[in-house]
Amino acid sequence: MKLFEQDLVIVNMGLPSFGKNLEREGVRVVEMDWHPPASGNHELIDLLDQIMMNNDELPSKIHHANSRAVDRLINAKPVITGIGTAGNVIPEMHERLVLHSGPPVEWNAMCGPMRGAVIGALILEGLANNAEEAADCASRGDVQFAPCHHHQTVGPMAGVVTASMPVWILENSTFGNKAYCTLNEGLGKVLRYGAYSDEVITRLIWMKEVLAPILSEALNLHGPLDVRSIIAQALQMGDEVHNRNRAATSLLIRTLAPLLVRSSADSSNVSDVLAFMDGNDHFFLNISMPACKCALDPCSGIPGSSLINTMSRNGTEFGIRISGLGDQWFTAPAPMVDGLYLPGFTARDAAPDIGDSVITESAGLGGFAMAAAPAIVQFVGGNASQALTFTRQMYDITLAEHPVYKIPGMDFRGTPTGIDLLKIIETGMVPVVNTGIAHRDPGIGMVGAGLVKPPMSCFVKALKGFVKTIQTE
Amino acid sequence: MKLFEQDLVIVNMGLPSFGKNLEREGVRVVEMDWHPPASGNHELIDLLDQIMMNNDELPSKIHHANSRAVDRLINAKPVITGIGTAGNVIPEMHERLVLHSGPPVEWNAMCGPMRGAVIGALILEGLANNAEEAADCASRGDVQFAPCHHHQTVGPMAGVVTASMPVWILENSTFGNKAYCTLNEGLGKVLRYGAYSDEVITRLIWMKEVLAPILSEALNLHGPLDVRSIIAQALQMGDEVHNRNRAATSLLIRTLAPLLVRSSADSSNVSDVLAFMDGNDHFFLNISMPACKCALDPCSGIPGSSLINTMSRNGTEFGIRISGLGDQWFTAPAPMVDGLYLPGFTARDAAPDIGDSVITESAGLGGFAMAAAPAIVQFVGGNASQALTFTRQMYDITLAEHPVYKIPGMDFRGTPTGIDLLKIIETGMVPVVNTGIAHRDPGIGMVGAGLVKPPMSCFVKALKGFVKTIQTE
Repeated sequence: MKLFEQDLVIVNMGLPSFGKNLEREGVRVVEMDWHPPASGNHELIDLLDQIMMNNDELPSKIHHANSRAVDRLINAKPVITGIGTAGNVIPEMHERLVLHSGPPVEWNAMCGPMRGAVIGALILEGLANNAEEAADCASRGDVQFAPCHHHQTVGPMAGVVTASMPVWILENSTFGNKAYCTLNEGLGKVLRYGAYSDEVITRLIWMKEVLAPILSEALNLHGPLDVRSIIAQALQMGDEVHNRNRAATSLLIRTLAPLLVRSSADSSNVSDVLAFMDGNDHFFLNISMPACKCALDPCSGIPGSSLINTMSRNGTEFGIRISGLGDQWFTAPAPMVDGLYLPGFTARDAAPDIGDSVITESAGLGGFAMAAAPAIVQFVGGNASQALTFTRQMYDITLAEHPVYKIPGMDFRGTPTGIDLLKIIETGMVPVVNTGIAHRDPGIGMVGAGLVKPPMSCFVKALKGFVKTIQTE
Repeated sequence: MKLFEQDLVIVNMGLPSFGKNLEREGVRVVEMDWHPPASGNHELIDLLDQIMMNNDELPSKIHHANSRAVDRLINAKPVITGIGTAGNVIPEMHERLVLHSGPPVEWNAMCGPMRGAVIGALILEGLANNAEEAADCASRGDVQFAPCHHHQTVGPMAGVVTASMPVWILENSTFGNKAYCTLNEGLGKVLRYGAYSDEVITRLIWMKEVLAPILSEALNLHGPLDVRSIIAQALQMGDEVHNRNRAATSLLIRTLAPLLVRSSADSSNVSDVLAFMDGNDHFFLNISMPACKCALDPCSGIPGSSLINTMSRNGTEFGIRISGLGDQWFTAPAPMVDGLYLPGFTARDAAPDIGDSVITESAGLGGFAMAAAPAIVQFVGGNASQALTFTRQMYDITLAEHPVYKIPGMDFRGTPTGIDLLKIIETGMVPVVNTGIAHRDPGIGMVGAGLVKPPMSCFVKALKGFVKTIQTE
């Protein structure tokens, strides 16, 4: 009875109303922010129980598989080895193949900006003379479509890659695998946002005829360029290398500038190349993306691992792939983005969430590293303290803290890295993703940027697949 | 009596032991962190009372004078207008004049690194052939000495400027006044840290013969270059533009690179210039310093203003100047720096605090903006949360928050700007300064970097001068 003679402090767990009533009676209450696993969903709790509670072997198998997967991820060392032409360097690329972002999608199901980008690419390749011819060509099956992800490639927004486009060649020097990505065109009216006007095509031609050869020569003079080091530094300089790449782009420019000047190109072209890169703070995005892609690819196909090694969207569907389930996609309709719009545009103009750029979040960067980039809220909305909160939350759904990618404002804590499907289900918390917004119609381009919540249903589908597979393995 | 029947919470102010005793009796106590003004020093309290309590006019005069002074400071718009030769552009500069950092000091009283820098400069100017001749020349009065600050100039560390050196020309476009600073040589064995070996002199010759002319041509192609904008961006990118200038240097390089390529110089020299800037993250320091100098100069000479418009040190003395007291210096012995040392060096190798670079703190940057640059603690010591604390404390001794220089990690709060002598005396809190550390002997160079506390005694001297002047005006 002595207990009740003392001043009691009550810890309340679950429904806050219990605590509130006690507080009204003058009792001191400490509220504990507790939720039942999987938001109390019985079906999901049952699935989790099947693998985590009902035997001893599976939890240990999953634990070891995830350790192996995330170890590969944090030990990746992406380097730029050069620039090539997509048709020459991307595996199984050919003249009538159009790569696109996200999970597989055919012309009929493509969203506006992806159709716009396909139209532009077919005009660029000389397979069509105008939008109408390009749409005909695409709809009657004269070209094939495949996800970038199936060809060791990633592409921002529409992510369209065709044979003549120049691409960055990255290599994960720890494991020897490669990844490819086109060169970034800038913001506004650009192919990846679905624009295909003459201005867009002219820029793409300049990029392959002037920009790529000069950059390629400078890279050859430089030798393999350590991208992990640039990303690590950029995180100390306010970037999260998805929607903020100003520091990383600056570091790339200053590294390459002395070598660009030594190239055989004439100085007016070199000057144009330097001005083009200076004019485009997203230039490094098309390097950070394949850096993450080549870091994540070796994490795929580890039996029993619930690590999410791909998240991606094609503007129609959001899709994920799970390490232990190999190349299988789990998809759900692509969500809308909650964001800030460029002058003259509103949410009504927006296409659904699109692009492979969420590969950065998959690797523990982008939205997961927003605490390193508080200034990004000026681009995607929100305030600086939210940026910190987003990163803090992501530790609850990830497997490791990155040993090289660190956040100065959190006393150099490593970024939350390696998303665990099971932790998402258990906490009910989906990955934080920041992204650009394309116009819903083909031919227009960028209209804004913001934050997007991946649909829980694709994680639920993946869980079902995961539980079934691990029980039958 | 009803009061005492309730649950009481005690607010304890001053000595914590009063509160501790009550807590031991089970009483809830809220401790208030209160200190008597001027740490209870009666002489200082009396001086503060004379101007703040004993009449109505003075407080209002001081208030208005300070508003005017700090308004000038935050409305400054520093731009680079070009590069010139010190002897041609710095007011009253001549071939036998040696400018140095800090308040006035003659050869006999100079510290080791300043003597080393003077020796190097006299060799560079052809006024001596070796260290011995240079020391003779300096000691027998063949050259004159004057503070940079008396010639619209600032110099990091020893701050030595002689006639043939190239200098950045900055203009405060709001008020039309100018400021000058040499070009930054890099870290390690460099003139400003007191080194004067052949390697140092050769680099200085290359800087005037190759670096400066090419930069000058690019600047002419560019037109006036907005330094305020670069500083504002760099604060979003982890710089505080005193001891961390990586972002600002990167932004400068990417801005100038396309124009450097268009200069008439041959490409191998242009490549060397780009590589030199890329190899030196402090390159922008010699721009941020004159940017702050030209922002602060118009704040001088406002009767009744207690704004500190100069802080500076020559390695022998730390000196300050007060707006309302014009060009008068108030000095105290230069303190030692508490810092991190380069391999092979310890605190025993260190010279006292030296350099004009504390002009950045005087303008609300450097140590005052450390919250924007948590990564700087890796260079000067401490941890990331301390960086935040330093900035927070500085709001207590400043007059304004800068409308353009903002700190992302503090939800874009403006940097604490415009140091108020009276607030320093009242709070007993001196400005936070981060700085490099030179070897105490001439000829060696940099040995570390750290944090330094300006000596309270020069602020006390300035207070006495201020009270006397304002009462007799």
